[in-house]
Amino acid sequence: MVNFEYYNPARIVFGKDTESETGRLAKSCGAKRVLLHYGGGSIKRNGLYDKVVDSLRGAGLWFTELGGVKPNPRLSLVRAGIALCREQSIDFILAVGGGSTIDSAKAIAAGVVCKRDIWDYYMDGSLTPAGALPLGVVLTIPAAGSESSDSSVITNEEGNYKRYIGSEYLVPRFAILDPEVTFTMPPAQIANGCSDILAHLMERYFTRTPHVDFTDRLLEASMRTVLENGPLAIKNPCDYNVRAEIMWLGTIAHNNLLGTGRIGDWASHDIEHELSAMYDIAHGAGLAIVFPAWMKYVNKAHRDKFVQLALRVFSVSLPLDDADALVAEMIERLEGWYRRMGLPVRLHEAGVGSDRIGQMAARCVEGRGTVGNFMKLSAEDIAAIYSLAL
Amino acid sequence: MVNFEYYNPARIVFGKDTESETGRLAKSCGAKRVLLHYGGGSIKRNGLYDKVVDSLRGAGLWFTELGGVKPNPRLSLVRAGIALCREQSIDFILAVGGGSTIDSAKAIAAGVVCKRDIWDYYMDGSLTPAGALPLGVVLTIPAAGSESSDSSVITNEEGNYKRYIGSEYLVPRFAILDPEVTFTMPPAQIANGCSDILAHLMERYFTRTPHVDFTDRLLEASMRTVLENGPLAIKNPCDYNVRAEIMWLGTIAHNNLLGTGRIGDWASHDIEHELSAMYDIAHGAGLAIVFPAWMKYVNKAHRDKFVQLALRVFSVSLPLDDADALVAEMIERLEGWYRRMGLPVRLHEAGVGSDRIGQMAARCVEGRGTVGNFMKLSAEDIAAIYSLAL
Repeated sequence: MVNFEYYNPARIVFGKDTESETGRLAKSCGAKRVLLHYGGGSIKRNGLYDKVVDSLRGAGLWFTELGGVKPNPRLSLVRAGIALCREQSIDFILAVGGGSTIDSAKAIAAGVVCKRDIWDYYMDGSLTPAGALPLGVVLTIPAAGSESSDSSVITNEEGNYKRYIGSEYLVPRFAILDPEVTFTMPPAQIANGCSDILAHLMERYFTRTPHVDFTDRLLEASMRTVLENGPLAIKNPCDYNVRAEIMWLGTIAHNNLLGTGRIGDWASHDIEHELSAMYDIAHGAGLAIVFPAWMKYVNKAHRDKFVQLALRVFSVSLPLDDADALVAEMIERLEGWYRRMGLPVRLHEAGVGSDRIGQMAARCVEGRGTVGNFMKLSAEDIAAIYSLAL
Repeated sequence: MVNFEYYNPARIVFGKDTESETGRLAKSCGAKRVLLHYGGGSIKRNGLYDKVVDSLRGAGLWFTELGGVKPNPRLSLVRAGIALCREQSIDFILAVGGGSTIDSAKAIAAGVVCKRDIWDYYMDGSLTPAGALPLGVVLTIPAAGSESSDSSVITNEEGNYKRYIGSEYLVPRFAILDPEVTFTMPPAQIANGCSDILAHLMERYFTRTPHVDFTDRLLEASMRTVLENGPLAIKNPCDYNVRAEIMWLGTIAHNNLLGTGRIGDWASHDIEHELSAMYDIAHGAGLAIVFPAWMKYVNKAHRDKFVQLALRVFSVSLPLDDADALVAEMIERLEGWYRRMGLPVRLHEAGVGSDRIGQMAARCVEGRGTVGNFMKLSAEDIAAIYSLAL
């Protein structure tokens, strides 16, 4: 186990009808003038917008709005949000949506306070924001974990760069999680969300840090939860209990608790980011394509962790003296789960061919040489992984 | 799953030599005049006291001291601490020790700020502290979880009452956890600590709240961790990796994360509190005596959770059509683990006879009628459980 610092002061308010607490919670954070930030308008169709607005008004809070956040949230809208906040003397940002909306809100919150252009912080890992406006969240999509994480991922349309920042200032003050809000999500969106949650767990699981058995076991418990509840969530969209398990898991999977004392991998996220930046495919779908290919490429180099995952999570009971067969069976079960969730597991299933593999691989390592910690991957390795996913 | 709010803003600083951060962390919380609170002086023998004092001095902080906290911390010392803090205009309390020292520090922190006598809050569940001085911790014993919990347990020597309070104000601002500090703990103390950690997990596990599979699995992962590492910690006291697993688990087991969305039981803690208040035996040893007896008494009323625990944690593989045998085997394995840890599992092994069973049972339900949620227990039930433990 390596030394670590763990600090997560996000207040989670979880359960039925908790969105009615929005105004009270924002006020308790000192909010007076609120920017209400959201996505494509589904919150207006399902009634959540009205509930949140009523709660803000009930608490006597002034607010203005900025909608239109898209998946893979865009820098241009972030810049518009920063300008709006400065014009209107906004002192609190309320994100109502999924990971894209929250990440966009985080970028705005930091951008209002920081002196440099916000994109500088995303492009230069040595820069960290010196502060951010306080931020609250009403979550609609269990997936990204951004509702209590310290990070934000933004896409710059000029050049299709997808980059992230992390800072304690970006941890939301509160996050409201009502599983009923997720009942109206399209099946593809819940599938993408579950894939993202599973990926957050696997990225942390695949570590070279020795003696991390407690967090290994917590990660295994969490993986079993998403593997078992994911297909049920698609089959029975209005099962509160199933949605509640997934929603709470989605937060815990990415609030850094499960990464304490260990160095995670994160190569698959980096490899996927190039894919979704280039082709604008959903992050969860991209991960379903990338992760099995990554496993096929790296498993022989560091075998033990794959064997442990096969035994403890996928309950493979093949003999241990043929680890090749054992790990291959585990990867097939994982691919089977992705397929059962309706996700693509090959690039061609997402309409992607081989023509830009070299370009994506080169961009993936740009400015850093390699990606990943479990096994350091060069552009050549990454191209081989994309090819395994064809 | 039931609605819940989860908020834990304690900053955990974990790993080798982290006690050198004490001064910096206290200063970042606004400390100027510090009360250094500790126990019987083992921190002076093992060098921790000097390291902490050097760190406070290095940060330019003034401090005064109050040592002498005993296991089952006493109200009289708490009152002395409150008076000292008021005299010396203390603005920050630093607890260096285990659960007793931290609980004592929490009582002082709240007592300085609150207008009523601090014991009123412990005796009357309807009163909650209106504030507390900020508090930091350097942990020496992985056990109580008080280093990031919101609760404090104090014993009033006048009448041997052991009672608790809970409040967000009592969550420490930071907790420093260096596993090396635990190398010099006597084996009985690490055994008691592991028993307390296991009990915190089992109290939360035994719930009647349905559909809590995610937290069930996290609890099972945690129980496996303490069951496997506990005996290793006794066998190899200076194995950093083993101590690190137990120390981090001890915090997570009681920071409320694993109780989210579920109503825990807590009868065994209440039953044990009467035992340790009456006979001053260690809390962990008392739990090793009480928990198996509680299990024998309640398991037939609500069988499923016991069967799940037997299968998933204790790996009992007896046929499911004889649940009596299956659960009995699980309880025997649990008792075997306690014995391997060197703990008593019967009252007579701790020198306790049957003469005060009625008195303890009556006091246990005083002012509340019953204890426990998994099965509500009257004084008669509690007396039967003590008798099963003879």
